[in-house]
Amino acid sequence: MVIKCKAAVAWEPDKPLVIEEIEVAPPQANEIRVKIVATGLCHTDLYHLFEGKHNDGFPVVLGHEGAGIVESVGPGVTEFQPGDKVIPLFVYQCKECRFCKSPKTNLCEKGWSRLRYSVMSPEESRLTCRGKKVLQFMGTSTFSEYTVVNEMGLAKINPAAPLDKVCLLGCGICTGYGAAVNTAKVEPGSTCAVFGMGAVGLAAVMGCKAAGAKRIIAVDVNPEKFEKAKVFGATDFVNPKDHSKPISKVLEEMTNGGVDFSLECVGNVEVMRSALESCMQGWGVSVMVGWTDMADFSARPIQLIAGRTWKGTLFGGFKSKDGVPQMVNAYLDKKVKLDEFITHNLTLDQVNDAIEMMKHGQCIRTVMSVSPQ
Amino acid sequence: MVIKCKAAVAWEPDKPLVIEEIEVAPPQANEIRVKIVATGLCHTDLYHLFEGKHNDGFPVVLGHEGAGIVESVGPGVTEFQPGDKVIPLFVYQCKECRFCKSPKTNLCEKGWSRLRYSVMSPEESRLTCRGKKVLQFMGTSTFSEYTVVNEMGLAKINPAAPLDKVCLLGCGICTGYGAAVNTAKVEPGSTCAVFGMGAVGLAAVMGCKAAGAKRIIAVDVNPEKFEKAKVFGATDFVNPKDHSKPISKVLEEMTNGGVDFSLECVGNVEVMRSALESCMQGWGVSVMVGWTDMADFSARPIQLIAGRTWKGTLFGGFKSKDGVPQMVNAYLDKKVKLDEFITHNLTLDQVNDAIEMMKHGQCIRTVMSVSPQ
Repeated sequence: MVIKCKAAVAWEPDKPLVIEEIEVAPPQANEIRVKIVATGLCHTDLYHLFEGKHNDGFPVVLGHEGAGIVESVGPGVTEFQPGDKVIPLFVYQCKECRFCKSPKTNLCEKGWSRLRYSVMSPEESRLTCRGKKVLQFMGTSTFSEYTVVNEMGLAKINPAAPLDKVCLLGCGICTGYGAAVNTAKVEPGSTCAVFGMGAVGLAAVMGCKAAGAKRIIAVDVNPEKFEKAKVFGATDFVNPKDHSKPISKVLEEMTNGGVDFSLECVGNVEVMRSALESCMQGWGVSVMVGWTDMADFSARPIQLIAGRTWKGTLFGGFKSKDGVPQMVNAYLDKKVKLDEFITHNLTLDQVNDAIEMMKHGQCIRTVMSVSPQ
Repeated sequence: MVIKCKAAVAWEPDKPLVIEEIEVAPPQANEIRVKIVATGLCHTDLYHLFEGKHNDGFPVVLGHEGAGIVESVGPGVTEFQPGDKVIPLFVYQCKECRFCKSPKTNLCEKGWSRLRYSVMSPEESRLTCRGKKVLQFMGTSTFSEYTVVNEMGLAKINPAAPLDKVCLLGCGICTGYGAAVNTAKVEPGSTCAVFGMGAVGLAAVMGCKAAGAKRIIAVDVNPEKFEKAKVFGATDFVNPKDHSKPISKVLEEMTNGGVDFSLECVGNVEVMRSALESCMQGWGVSVMVGWTDMADFSARPIQLIAGRTWKGTLFGGFKSKDGVPQMVNAYLDKKVKLDEFITHNLTLDQVNDAIEMMKHGQCIRTVMSVSPQ
């Protein structure tokens, strides 16, 4: 049975989202229809709308950092039942492909091949608006009261979890935290630098601290972010605007040669370069966490030849179906913070306000209530 | 006592070397004067002469891939005695600095800080020609019948070692072999691609094979290199000129997605990019082995965000004083090939012929006899 419900539709790039009535088709084989209770807004949503602007990516329902409750399941689904609390996953985990079977990566071949410009093909979308197929952003589309996802892209979580908090584990917090813990593999006693104190960067700080880093240097051009960074474990704060020399030089001097680990959580190729150059020669590891595909990153070969390593991470290296329920439990056990990321609570109707605040750096995370629980 | 002897002096960039009589000062504290018996010619020598061209880098005695015999030792030297067979090291190992004490790197802070544009300061050079200080290339200067090196930059080797073979372990062969074994950490059963079939690339092929790689794809624009590559263990050969599509695409198709490890042994930033892009997403590791500082390397962020790792290596990651004697023994035990790299034997007087051959890709390694043993 088709469900008619409310969703925020992005009809074209650069324009405000429009709250529309959409039709959500019943789940097909191995699919689950989910009532979205709460969703975060992530920079990647804004990136698609304002920067990526791929023509094939619209109209679309954005949102990929949500949590909800299973409404119904399609044929063949045995893992989920109506009423289960769930988090949609934009990185699949089929558990069968060569990537899922490798301990080295959290990519999933089945999921990866389905996305192009961050959207699923129109054939795979179950959303329709004004008689027209609407794309599902990153296979999820959480800016909708209901959505349909594949069972490879859904995690069943602890029934005790508050959905208006754990929705953040659908993207940003796992991405930043995992970048430190899983990808950089931050070591006890090490010195780290995190570039960009948005939610992803703050989560990276939290990950560095959890991994036992001795010194965590928060880098941001907005000094107002420092108080928040402290909450998550930052020990030092550097504002590049306070220095005439390159930030990598500043960090080199602060740390007697450079940091052991740096994490770029901005999505800017110049910052990526600075993050690499801030690392100690010999063993420094720099991880790209922020997303951009608008330009090449670059550096001098000597940076790597002198022993630095450059890596990147998608969803913090977490195998999604395994990792997200664990992170939910870590939150319930008070080992991972989530509440402290949330600066604003709005409703889906106010999504354009949330977008404006994020564009202007006025929030860390805004959580929007979508369907009543 | 000053020794007067023969050396090949590079008075200025781009010009042939000149065989001159030079004066070699006695070793000072912690220094050793070495009679150079044999030396290889390496691309890095050519790079300094024809590409780097730093004004502060001339006049200079090039050569950094040599082997010889201790002639005399300066005050405080206890590790070496006249008559010891030795290999000069352009990467120091002081065994005391934080780098030497870390298992993660083969850099040595004491050595690193002494080199600028690959030459030691005039104050530290013990070579004089026509009344003028001549610089020591990479702290070694093996294109001279005698040279003086610091004890941190000299390895004592097995007295059974033939110096006209093991001289190659002073740079190229350790660099390529170690890049595969130490830096990439090539795994048994893996698929590798090596870009550039010069001596370093061939040594990288040998390293991949020693590490148990199942498939080793040699990439070079000169198909004449393939027979040699086979000798060292290459299983496939790809000439980018035979294909209209990018080489990374060719390798991706040959390997169902990309190679597990790629090694760039050319020193060209475009090839570095291809080598990275040839790697399997999720876990592919690409290592820069070739040297250039003429341009930035670059790639799209998604290349790393999708799980590839970009690294570099200097001297193949070998801690030099520990590693070179081990590699000499591995050669004597027939676990490492050296003879097969040597395509030409000349004398130091013929150094300009050796340079011409290398410039035109007509040799793998030329070994020059310097002093009679």
